[in-house]
Amino acid sequence: MEGEDRRQQILRAAFEEFSEKGFHGATIKGIAERASLQSPALIYWYFPGGKEELFASAVESQLSFLQSFRDPEALLDLPPDALLRKVADAYGEFVSRPVTIRLARLLLGEAPRHPKLFDPVVARGPMRVLRFLETYLERQVQLGRLRPHDVRASARAFLGMLFPMGLSHVLLPQLREHGPTDEEYVATMIETFLDGLRPHPQEAGDDGD
Amino acid sequence: MEGEDRRQQILRAAFEEFSEKGFHGATIKGIAERASLQSPALIYWYFPGGKEELFASAVESQLSFLQSFRDPEALLDLPPDALLRKVADAYGEFVSRPVTIRLARLLLGEAPRHPKLFDPVVARGPMRVLRFLETYLERQVQLGRLRPHDVRASARAFLGMLFPMGLSHVLLPQLREHGPTDEEYVATMIETFLDGLRPHPQEAGDDGD
Repeated sequence: MEGEDRRQQILRAAFEEFSEKGFHGATIKGIAERASLQSPALIYWYFPGGKEELFASAVESQLSFLQSFRDPEALLDLPPDALLRKVADAYGEFVSRPVTIRLARLLLGEAPRHPKLFDPVVARGPMRVLRFLETYLERQVQLGRLRPHDVRASARAFLGMLFPMGLSHVLLPQLREHGPTDEEYVATMIETFLDGLRPHPQEAGDDGD
Repeated sequence: MEGEDRRQQILRAAFEEFSEKGFHGATIKGIAERASLQSPALIYWYFPGGKEELFASAVESQLSFLQSFRDPEALLDLPPDALLRKVADAYGEFVSRPVTIRLARLLLGEAPRHPKLFDPVVARGPMRVLRFLETYLERQVQLGRLRPHDVRASARAFLGMLFPMGLSHVLLPQLREHGPTDEEYVATMIETFLDGLRPHPQEAGDDGD
């Protein structure tokens, strides 16, 4: 088995171990056994940062929506409705995976006790998507596709709007009762957001700068 | 001490006990002692549902934003920018209270282990605000102030947009770095949302039905 495959195998084993036993209950030895490694010490070859690094990397490996951003530069020129739908669909697919419920339980279980464990998880997941979205929206403003506005706020607002969809799958099924389907929700959400950020007619007509 | 004061005193004591010891560690006896009750059995006079009811009611008593909805009928005719700002400000005030961090830790700590504990909390807090907002937005559509749209989706989207503000105070201070202030965030968020739901010019000019 080659390096990258071995690494992926360890990450899967680590996610199993962490989600069954929590961060403190999990052991390097247990992860090595699940990954059928001959020696637990080999894990440090792949993850020199030990258990903390394994935790962050194991969680990151489950964030399937990150795959949509593998080539971020290619996304920068997509029209807003296409890009936002891509982000929303990737998130919808992520929160609909059964494994995401286990991921959420793991994170919720650890968050209150070990807030420091989360800084790298947050940096690799949500903050990365947020920074990308800020960059993307700023570029759309420059291209004249969106009106000038505070993209720090709109990027946060867009990701915030996705959140009820995730909650409804993972933690609050109540939100689905008498609620829209994911498709209906995403359609209304993106239409409202983009209509709200469309250049005002007078701005669109200006020569502008 | 009269009934309602006594009830409030028990709720404060219960919140202290639950947030220190978690749901399972907390005891009726411990709550009674904190509330200086002569007998723990008296607690059942005020809360016949026992520990589960106390948990839901103690959490509800900390949801300060509910106070803004004490007279929901009076809110139905407020203009959208005023009502939405009121909701956003109440939420901003709530998430900025130091006690809300303890509340979030309590809920996050219990959520993975006792999901059933949450149904009444969710019903008394977020679902109540969501149902109100759906009713409010539907009414604004009827009044012609907003264009016809799926209010189940827009109500969820609006509450979702508030969420990054809460997260930034309670769990993810990273969101504040290079981020907008609460005031800037709320201003952009409401402006975008309302511009996105404004009646289209052709619709506004129609006789409509």
